[in-house]
Amino acid sequence: MTSIITQRIALDFEFPVLFTRDVFDPANPALLEAVERAGPGPHRLAAVVDGGLAAADPGLGARFAAYCAAHADTFLLTAPPLVVAGGEGAKADFAVVEAVWKLIFEARLCRQSFLLVVGGGAVLDAAGFAAATAHRGVRLLRLPSTALAQNDAGVGVKNGVNAFGRKNYLGCFAPPYAVVNDHALLAALPERETRAGLAEAVKVALVRDAAFFARLRELAPRLAVLESDALEEANRRCALAHLEHIATGGDPFELGSARPLDFGHWAAHALEEATGGELRHGEAVAVGVALDTVYSGLVGRIGETEVGQVLALFSDLGLAVWHPALAGLDMEAAVDAFREHLGGRLHLSLLDGIGRRVEVHEVDFARMAAARERLAARTAAA
Amino acid sequence: MTSIITQRIALDFEFPVLFTRDVFDPANPALLEAVERAGPGPHRLAAVVDGGLAAADPGLGARFAAYCAAHADTFLLTAPPLVVAGGEGAKADFAVVEAVWKLIFEARLCRQSFLLVVGGGAVLDAAGFAAATAHRGVRLLRLPSTALAQNDAGVGVKNGVNAFGRKNYLGCFAPPYAVVNDHALLAALPERETRAGLAEAVKVALVRDAAFFARLRELAPRLAVLESDALEEANRRCALAHLEHIATGGDPFELGSARPLDFGHWAAHALEEATGGELRHGEAVAVGVALDTVYSGLVGRIGETEVGQVLALFSDLGLAVWHPALAGLDMEAAVDAFREHLGGRLHLSLLDGIGRRVEVHEVDFARMAAARERLAARTAAA
Repeated sequence: MTSIITQRIALDFEFPVLFTRDVFDPANPALLEAVERAGPGPHRLAAVVDGGLAAADPGLGARFAAYCAAHADTFLLTAPPLVVAGGEGAKADFAVVEAVWKLIFEARLCRQSFLLVVGGGAVLDAAGFAAATAHRGVRLLRLPSTALAQNDAGVGVKNGVNAFGRKNYLGCFAPPYAVVNDHALLAALPERETRAGLAEAVKVALVRDAAFFARLRELAPRLAVLESDALEEANRRCALAHLEHIATGGDPFELGSARPLDFGHWAAHALEEATGGELRHGEAVAVGVALDTVYSGLVGRIGETEVGQVLALFSDLGLAVWHPALAGLDMEAAVDAFREHLGGRLHLSLLDGIGRRVEVHEVDFARMAAARERLAARTAAA
Repeated sequence: MTSIITQRIALDFEFPVLFTRDVFDPANPALLEAVERAGPGPHRLAAVVDGGLAAADPGLGARFAAYCAAHADTFLLTAPPLVVAGGEGAKADFAVVEAVWKLIFEARLCRQSFLLVVGGGAVLDAAGFAAATAHRGVRLLRLPSTALAQNDAGVGVKNGVNAFGRKNYLGCFAPPYAVVNDHALLAALPERETRAGLAEAVKVALVRDAAFFARLRELAPRLAVLESDALEEANRRCALAHLEHIATGGDPFELGSARPLDFGHWAAHALEEATGGELRHGEAVAVGVALDTVYSGLVGRIGETEVGQVLALFSDLGLAVWHPALAGLDMEAAVDAFREHLGGRLHLSLLDGIGRRVEVHEVDFARMAAARERLAARTAAA
């Protein structure tokens, strides 16, 4: 009585990620290369700018306007750039999403027009959600303006906003049309943001790339003082590792359970929620990665020497591996919330050596508490 | 100074489309087969029901509850079904989307839980948008309850709601987890809805499948009186043609410009907007398909015999090829709005014979006006 047809849909997305400096210098070809495959222009364009960046870099608006004027044969700027409040507030509710939908409508962007977004991860996430859902997707040009956005979320395929008190509760998977990482944009950042961004580089090195970990140890003295060339190298290599993981990990839209780049993130998300965002995402990742590294040692997966190297690297980079909120954290509840976000069985990444990830499905909470104690004791001793 | 990495992401989606009758009969295995690849249950489940269907089929709620009780090892129903107002109003604003987000949150559905939606196209579109964006996508089980939803939109990969006065302005592309077409659900429908659904069958036959067109002519006397077996055959074949087009058309997420299954739809959308929804989508498609068929004849692409066959088929099916709103339609503006929705150059489908589509980039509006005159004269004569 019942018959079944199996529908198969194959999709191939391809987008360029460009690494450059001074993207709005009219002589810089990066943005032209980013849209080259769209064919001859002029292409309709509207722009969203992170208010935090606009305040820190007051010349940005004029440089962007001059760039568009110089490349009017490629880009038809259809409306003044929309400046939105930056930081986690950008994705705290639907205000930015709705403002960007309105911009896209009033600028008469179509599915083959471009929305250019310059900003930190939260602005990229909120404006990216709007871009992905207007006309079922206008073309998104991402210009991440923080270290974390450039080396992690900005090169990925997700967007979203918070809802019901949960981070990223609403969003979708949508590859951007292109990403341009302009290292010069980072100069406008507060030091704290730049330093926090290094935590993702340590994380990705630990789970994927022992050579990168060794290189981070070499670069540590220069990274500690936020030397520009060293930061550029670390962030670029971190971005490449994330790109490679998404392309080759076998589950770019996360339909299954495994998320190997979430190493240390169960505790990081819980700490961000517990501190109401006072702890930056990268700072929380440093604590979470340190905790799961020590735990990996306590369950016999990596040696004491390696654990010591990881903790020393965080210390050398000026990233704390402890926060008072960790002391009071209900770790069983935090692990379960992490499990529930994906559903089904727990999938947790541990280290099986530097650069080698292993997936486990259970946590020994007595040992996890011991790992926490060690971080507390180390910090008290310092 | 600039370096480029090209990111490539390959995605393969696979979902079953099941054709059955009486899906909530506890002995019917269709829903169990639909979720088989999710592994052993129980799987968390919440449900959304079209209020129009609930009113027309008052036993539905009890049948669904009994089904879930009989299959508690597969489905864990986590909340009472959410009944939402059906019809175009379901996607007129964000109310249904927000109600479904709230349901998903309160039912604690995760990315591996199921949202089952029983309803017409508008309810499927709005609830599907909510399902695709909560947790970046919970698993959607679509049970289309109108002929049009079963033979067209319900088996596709789109969702959405209206905004800024534009149909489907907000939405995304998201394959469902499974679709179950229950022919018995259609018995509760008003006759007008069932008849309107036949317009999509004529459309898809004309652009893809001359044998199906011939079969529709054979079936016409039985379809005209809405005989159940004939309707089931026509709707199933129409659904299969849509599925095949999406899978093999080369552009399932419509990143390019061509949309060959939109034959006749520029006029149909304009007529729906002009009549404020008084004209059903299928009824508007009948007028739009007839218009572009006559135009295809006037520009010498198909013969007079074929044009006559198409108009006669609509007549035999009881579908009008004229509506007073067509007389006042600004056809140039309507074609341009259609072009703008996709952006770039105009891509319009015409017929190059029965079952053969051709794409053109210009319209001869004098001839299009003559095509309109012919439909008016034919209707006046009848």
